[in-house]
Amino acid sequence: MVIMGVSGCGKTTTGKKLSKKIGLPFFDADDFHPKENVEKMKSGIPLNSEDRFPWLKILAKNIENWNENDGAIIACSALKEEYREILASKNKDIIWVYLSGDQNLIRARIEQRRGHFMNSNLLVSQFNDLEIPEYGIHIDISQSPDKIINEIILNLAHMNKSFFGVIGLGVMGRNLSLNIAEKGYALSVYNRATIGEENMVKDFLGETVNDMKIMGFTVLREFVNSLERPRKILIMIKAGNAIDHVIESLIPMLSEGDIIIDGGNSHYHDTKKRADYLEGKGLNFIGAGISGGEEGARKGPSIMPSGTKISYQIIAPVLESIAAIDKNGTKCCTYIGPEGSGHFVKMIHNGIEYAEMQLLAEIYTLLSDSKSNKEIKDIFLEWNSGDLASYLLEITADIMTKKEGGQYVLDLILDKAGNKGTGSWSTKAALDLGTVNTMMSSAVFARYVSSFKEKRINLSRKVATEIHNNGILSIEDIRDAYKFARIVNHQQGFEVIRRASKSYNWNLSLSDLSRIWTNGCIIRSELMIKCISYFKVSDDLFEHPEIVEVLKNNEHAVKSVLIHGLLNRIPLPLFTEANTYWISMTTKRLSANMIQAQRDYFGAHTYQRIDAPENQSFHTNWY
Amino acid sequence: MVIMGVSGCGKTTTGKKLSKKIGLPFFDADDFHPKENVEKMKSGIPLNSEDRFPWLKILAKNIENWNENDGAIIACSALKEEYREILASKNKDIIWVYLSGDQNLIRARIEQRRGHFMNSNLLVSQFNDLEIPEYGIHIDISQSPDKIINEIILNLAHMNKSFFGVIGLGVMGRNLSLNIAEKGYALSVYNRATIGEENMVKDFLGETVNDMKIMGFTVLREFVNSLERPRKILIMIKAGNAIDHVIESLIPMLSEGDIIIDGGNSHYHDTKKRADYLEGKGLNFIGAGISGGEEGARKGPSIMPSGTKISYQIIAPVLESIAAIDKNGTKCCTYIGPEGSGHFVKMIHNGIEYAEMQLLAEIYTLLSDSKSNKEIKDIFLEWNSGDLASYLLEITADIMTKKEGGQYVLDLILDKAGNKGTGSWSTKAALDLGTVNTMMSSAVFARYVSSFKEKRINLSRKVATEIHNNGILSIEDIRDAYKFARIVNHQQGFEVIRRASKSYNWNLSLSDLSRIWTNGCIIRSELMIKCISYFKVSDDLFEHPEIVEVLKNNEHAVKSVLIHGLLNRIPLPLFTEANTYWISMTTKRLSANMIQAQRDYFGAHTYQRIDAPENQSFHTNWY
Repeated sequence: MVIMGVSGCGKTTTGKKLSKKIGLPFFDADDFHPKENVEKMKSGIPLNSEDRFPWLKILAKNIENWNENDGAIIACSALKEEYREILASKNKDIIWVYLSGDQNLIRARIEQRRGHFMNSNLLVSQFNDLEIPEYGIHIDISQSPDKIINEIILNLAHMNKSFFGVIGLGVMGRNLSLNIAEKGYALSVYNRATIGEENMVKDFLGETVNDMKIMGFTVLREFVNSLERPRKILIMIKAGNAIDHVIESLIPMLSEGDIIIDGGNSHYHDTKKRADYLEGKGLNFIGAGISGGEEGARKGPSIMPSGTKISYQIIAPVLESIAAIDKNGTKCCTYIGPEGSGHFVKMIHNGIEYAEMQLLAEIYTLLSDSKSNKEIKDIFLEWNSGDLASYLLEITADIMTKKEGGQYVLDLILDKAGNKGTGSWSTKAALDLGTVNTMMSSAVFARYVSSFKEKRINLSRKVATEIHNNGILSIEDIRDAYKFARIVNHQQGFEVIRRASKSYNWNLSLSDLSRIWTNGCIIRSELMIKCISYFKVSDDLFEHPEIVEVLKNNEHAVKSVLIHGLLNRIPLPLFTEANTYWISMTTKRLSANMIQAQRDYFGAHTYQRIDAPENQSFHTNWY
Repeated sequence: MVIMGVSGCGKTTTGKKLSKKIGLPFFDADDFHPKENVEKMKSGIPLNSEDRFPWLKILAKNIENWNENDGAIIACSALKEEYREILASKNKDIIWVYLSGDQNLIRARIEQRRGHFMNSNLLVSQFNDLEIPEYGIHIDISQSPDKIINEIILNLAHMNKSFFGVIGLGVMGRNLSLNIAEKGYALSVYNRATIGEENMVKDFLGETVNDMKIMGFTVLREFVNSLERPRKILIMIKAGNAIDHVIESLIPMLSEGDIIIDGGNSHYHDTKKRADYLEGKGLNFIGAGISGGEEGARKGPSIMPSGTKISYQIIAPVLESIAAIDKNGTKCCTYIGPEGSGHFVKMIHNGIEYAEMQLLAEIYTLLSDSKSNKEIKDIFLEWNSGDLASYLLEITADIMTKKEGGQYVLDLILDKAGNKGTGSWSTKAALDLGTVNTMMSSAVFARYVSSFKEKRINLSRKVATEIHNNGILSIEDIRDAYKFARIVNHQQGFEVIRRASKSYNWNLSLSDLSRIWTNGCIIRSELMIKCISYFKVSDDLFEHPEIVEVLKNNEHAVKSVLIHGLLNRIPLPLFTEANTYWISMTTKRLSANMIQAQRDYFGAHTYQRIDAPENQSFHTNWY
């Protein structure tokens, strides 16, 4: 810390007092002057800039040494910016304390002083030289020495506090932290130091670059104390009970108005519960869905925050600064709605993602019968140059030809797919809301089926059907069927959100939501960009004439794909669901009258009639 | 109440004391003798049977009158069965109290007696006449008069207690109650008397027949007090919070060891929670799935009870007596397993049912293109005479031609299907257990789709596709596809149960379970009968060679059905799922490697390789 200001402003007195108070050694810069300068000053000759450079360099070197230990307090006039630059050249983190006072006050003080080698006549030249710094802690010296010390300490405390905190340095936490620090926010990070995680914080700090303001902690209380109020703490740990444990540990350390943000894939019911619980304790809780994977977290994810709007506004600058940017330059982060709505839409985002991935897997199966990996890649790249373009299509093209040791990696990967809950949560939500998400649910089930590898091998041996390739499917049919199926997938996904918004009174904007999904997230695509305007017309994609036209025109392609699948024993669960849903939704009269008749027959559940108002129930004595 | 026994056994003394104690009027039968009889007795001439008939008839008439009020206590020798029959002819509910004593003891008492018109010499003839009743309360008169009274009251209390209680007189509760009472069990029933339900108990008692021992209550405490211990109370109310409310009301009224049975469609998690909660209070809880609808409840349902085995054994006689009977004469009720396993299997039963119903609805759609209702009925009846026979097929045949006012009822029913939760619960359970139930889940979603009637009408107008009937599908193909799809449905359903049994350590027997589902329940069928033996070989139907053979041989039929559906725009969600699952499960290598590559690409989720052990994880730097 450099205490600076004109001669007589009280640098030494203040420095010594402060040294006693905070336990850092005190040095007077004047003690480091070369002999020639001391003589000059004693003779009343003001030092010019040239005189000062060697002295400042000696000082800078010393500061560097002190900094390698715990630091030090230095009293040094450092009147001009160029002098300060020399001192700071090797010491970026100098804290500048500028003692500011009126020329008359200082003159009076100097004239009372005895035995000092500097004549008060020099004061005028000092004020002429002084370039007041635009940074640092500025202290008014008209107050008492004790008050001056207190004010410096108060400012110090504030200066060292981080604006934002992150708990959990897994892949996502680490990358989001770097992203936040890169945007200039002073950041504190915390990770527990349990077995296997002892070095997480240290390793992370090793990844950071010099001008990032990051403090790392393995003691939660120190982490919390390092944050300025209201504290803004982003939790990036595995969803589930662990979140509650962290919240319970935090509560006694936090103050009213602090904000906890859960950026993991928590269940929206849990988020609602936690928000209510914390509200009762005067704390704010934001459930924020974050999509973009490892890379998105570092370079710009899509962020879906929910909670009270007022607490969102406090954290908005940070979240919006790190988010991806859409093609109009707007941030892919917007307030979603109350309660767990952010986690809800992130969950459905993942459901849509499951289905998009499975569709591509099915296309890969269809194409790999007759095309090489390279040819498939080229087909995908061509599609990706048009309105089918999407992040997932793009990475799938990459994947096709990625080699390791001369072999395609794809060909070496075991066909047992994993899953992490959000896919099945989406299905459960749809079931609860009475809406249909057959595409995402079938995508989840397809992953389950894939995991029964041993059973599949056994059964395939028993069945051992010889398949003769039944006709060639055109690339155009596959492409058009893909176009068709993606629309159905998006309609089903957004329909679940629409229903939730209605049921829970969330008042979500599907158009805004599509917009923040046009970049940063896994399901960004040209179709998503179109959805922004589609949803301005209606909340149901099937209401949009353009959508209906595409579906109508590509029905035949899906039909061709499915018949090809049937004839060649290729399982195509997602294309199948897309077709079933569209055909069902465009069928005026379904056979559900039979279901109702059966239910009334064995359970007296009653039924409605086509020739009576819907509020009227009928029962037949069937037997 | 008639207190009977030979002269001098203490009928009058006992009757008068008891009258004071329980507040019913006392009458001495001898006071109703015609004059001639009194004279005869005074002369020491024993009465013969002919003397007694007019007297007994007078008495019977009086008893009838007393009974119309609160009843009465009568002292009457009633030595012979024929005398007692006269008294009981119009009074079925006489309580007989037989005072039983040694001849010497009675003689001694009579000889001490003064002023009585009967000579103790008559005692011998009385003992000759005496036919000890095989019913009623028998009391030993060698004990003190107070003890005699106490013993009678204790017996009375016990006599009037019901063996079993039912709470809730909805369709199912009413029918189960009649079924239980019909089996001879003394039954108490309770229904709250809230608005709209004031007359439930009264109306129900009106339905009962005379020899049923049923007491009805609208006050819960009276209902509970009417039950003998350990109390056995079957709750038949709507699943959900209402169950908890009833349980909370019951707890303070119950005693240790009492058993509560929940016979509704409760969620198995709730059942587990309730069982744990009640165990902590010394009470037993049985979760019992009950299937069979209205008719099954009355005539014999399939019952799936779970909980501790020891409490099941206490209620087993009642549950087994009312259950359906399988073709070997065994009851369709067996102990399922611990916790909520009974409700779990009932839930999956309903899931299987959903899919079976939807399959029939799809077949109806396929056939109704070219066949009349009558022709379809005949096809169903023919199928039902063979190995496709099932309860649901049978009722569907009935439904086809049921007419009201000259019109087919089926044609008048609105095609919007309802659902009650267990279908979607099944899907959620499968998702949690990592198993696949695409057939039941699609059946649920098909019902949802049907409910979007207005949207469907709108969209069908916009699409307005002209469909030319593309070829005729053979009845045989539909039949064989149906056979195929039903097997897949049963495999998926039982697979969910197998997984649950393994995950929760329930140790369920799928073979026993199939057996109790061969009668009484909605999904009873020839296939279910076969499952009994299939599951003796393996818990996975797909492991059975006969099953694999049927599926293999009928794949082509499903294919034909699905292609017909595609060409004619007929939604066939369930046939589709059956095919997809079978084809997937018999495909050695699926495209899940693509899913794993994508997940590793954007989320660093890692993957397994075909050339490395499964416990090894790999990650590729894809970009």
